[in-house]
Amino acid sequence: MNIDMIRAAATRLEGHARRTPLLSSPFLDDIAGRRVFIKPECLQHTGSFKFRGAWSALSALDPEVCKKGVIAFSSGNHAQGVALAAARHVTTSVIIMPADAPQLKIDNTRALGAEVILYDRDTEDRDEIGARIASERGLTLIKPFDNEYVIAGQGTTGLEIAQDANALGLQNADVLVCCGGGGLTSGIALACEADAPTLRVRPVEPKGFDDVKRSLESGTIQRNTATSGNICDAIITPQPGDMTFPIMHRLCGSGLTISEDEALQAMAHAFLRLKLVAEPGGAAALAAALFRKDDIEGEAVIVTISGGNVDPAEFTKALDTL
Amino acid sequence: MNIDMIRAAATRLEGHARRTPLLSSPFLDDIAGRRVFIKPECLQHTGSFKFRGAWSALSALDPEVCKKGVIAFSSGNHAQGVALAAARHVTTSVIIMPADAPQLKIDNTRALGAEVILYDRDTEDRDEIGARIASERGLTLIKPFDNEYVIAGQGTTGLEIAQDANALGLQNADVLVCCGGGGLTSGIALACEADAPTLRVRPVEPKGFDDVKRSLESGTIQRNTATSGNICDAIITPQPGDMTFPIMHRLCGSGLTISEDEALQAMAHAFLRLKLVAEPGGAAALAAALFRKDDIEGEAVIVTISGGNVDPAEFTKALDTL
Repeated sequence: MNIDMIRAAATRLEGHARRTPLLSSPFLDDIAGRRVFIKPECLQHTGSFKFRGAWSALSALDPEVCKKGVIAFSSGNHAQGVALAAARHVTTSVIIMPADAPQLKIDNTRALGAEVILYDRDTEDRDEIGARIASERGLTLIKPFDNEYVIAGQGTTGLEIAQDANALGLQNADVLVCCGGGGLTSGIALACEADAPTLRVRPVEPKGFDDVKRSLESGTIQRNTATSGNICDAIITPQPGDMTFPIMHRLCGSGLTISEDEALQAMAHAFLRLKLVAEPGGAAALAAALFRKDDIEGEAVIVTISGGNVDPAEFTKALDTL
Repeated sequence: MNIDMIRAAATRLEGHARRTPLLSSPFLDDIAGRRVFIKPECLQHTGSFKFRGAWSALSALDPEVCKKGVIAFSSGNHAQGVALAAARHVTTSVIIMPADAPQLKIDNTRALGAEVILYDRDTEDRDEIGARIASERGLTLIKPFDNEYVIAGQGTTGLEIAQDANALGLQNADVLVCCGGGGLTSGIALACEADAPTLRVRPVEPKGFDDVKRSLESGTIQRNTATSGNICDAIITPQPGDMTFPIMHRLCGSGLTISEDEALQAMAHAFLRLKLVAEPGGAAALAAALFRKDDIEGEAVIVTISGGNVDPAEFTKALDTL
């Protein structure tokens, strides 16, 4: 796993993934006490950065293998990314989703052409289910983060951040990344190491689901005790990935945590100040920028809004915090 | 008023206004029955395209004149655009706003550094107040659309649309523009005439406030009977501008109209499919693309989302249409 793989992924993504801009608002700067720059991956195809990794992985497959179809397990955003990437590669996709995933994500994944299979998060093992169906049907498993091509795809976000940060002359900024399994975080960290090495990449997680933060502190992979029961569903994972953790351990600054209410407030600020729809997990990094300012060193902060796939009822809850 | 003024405005806006992308969603394509491309000016600074015209006008002033300050009448988006452009030109702005303007817009305009003077719509004459203050303080009036530099600034949106349409190979597409006084519509029409002449620019207005549509049909400027009482407040104006109408008459295709409910539904689709916050008037063109498909000829349609400054309560109404 190295920067050359990310640059190769960027070439494969050209003309397929969206090149998202870097946004800002003086109102957010005021709250955060420093300049805040937003990488809005909610504007990416399928409403999250996951399309990058999915496209990267599918476009790297041997065409004969790709033609047989792919399978993925996902709470929603990776699902939609794989479903659309598969449809555009004119192949089939099967997506294993938790039964309690947001309805919008389940509906979208089906509408994008995937076959959706639901499972129970607490009693069933998604890895086991995925592996079994993959083997039965000859499908290629596209893991959500422990896949070099997926990490490379997510890392293209980091190439763009580095390019824009360099154009703005940003030095020593904190790059806050909404972090689940660490695919986006490790990909961005590798890209920044190469192209903007003064930037400090830091994962942001929900309180009580801070496996990456604790793993970085201890130097070994730590698990979460629970894997459900938080509105930031997109970034709740059992533990950091075997591939992503060593990269994050080598390159990332310390982790930050935010509360559910802070995620909702950050969604409201994204609505009001950026005109963006963020989902709770996608607003985690913005929440840290706004509400953990004493834990941030840089005079500027770059935050990912990693996704915007949120049900209207949940979004209304965020607006109610205003 | 010509294309050279728009190109000159583009040069002045470089590094100051945001270069917005062109977005899309397969879900919107399905509803519209053709490819739909979105120009999201809600992502522009201050949440609407108005910042382009304001920056264009202020940056064209003699520096000594600019230093004395500017004044504008507006209850919404032009107010915020002028306020931010003035602050970034290190000069003062006075904005005359109706006392019953949305509190959020008054607060934002003040927070962006403007001196806000409220007047009573029923008992006071805003033109008298504005003229007196402008003359007392030597301020320059920045009109919202009947100003060549403002039209040129809005026209930079059209340069970007033309560039992106050409890159996509789009021919004969309809370009639907949310239309109030016609500054954005006429600017985009001039830009497309020069850079993408097969595109057909068409104004979209709320039903009952279709002064531009009727003016284009009759060939002479027509007025609206009412100038309030519609949620699309940002695009409700008494009549097309004296400068903008001849341009629209020469270059635009026929106008389209949409209902308030269709504007709210389009906002909901922008939320769901684009992760964008649109205000009712800013969603008018998208509403026409989705719900007036028999009135559109092109096999593709490009729509502006012209602004996103909407109160949470109004946005919730839009989500309730889902």
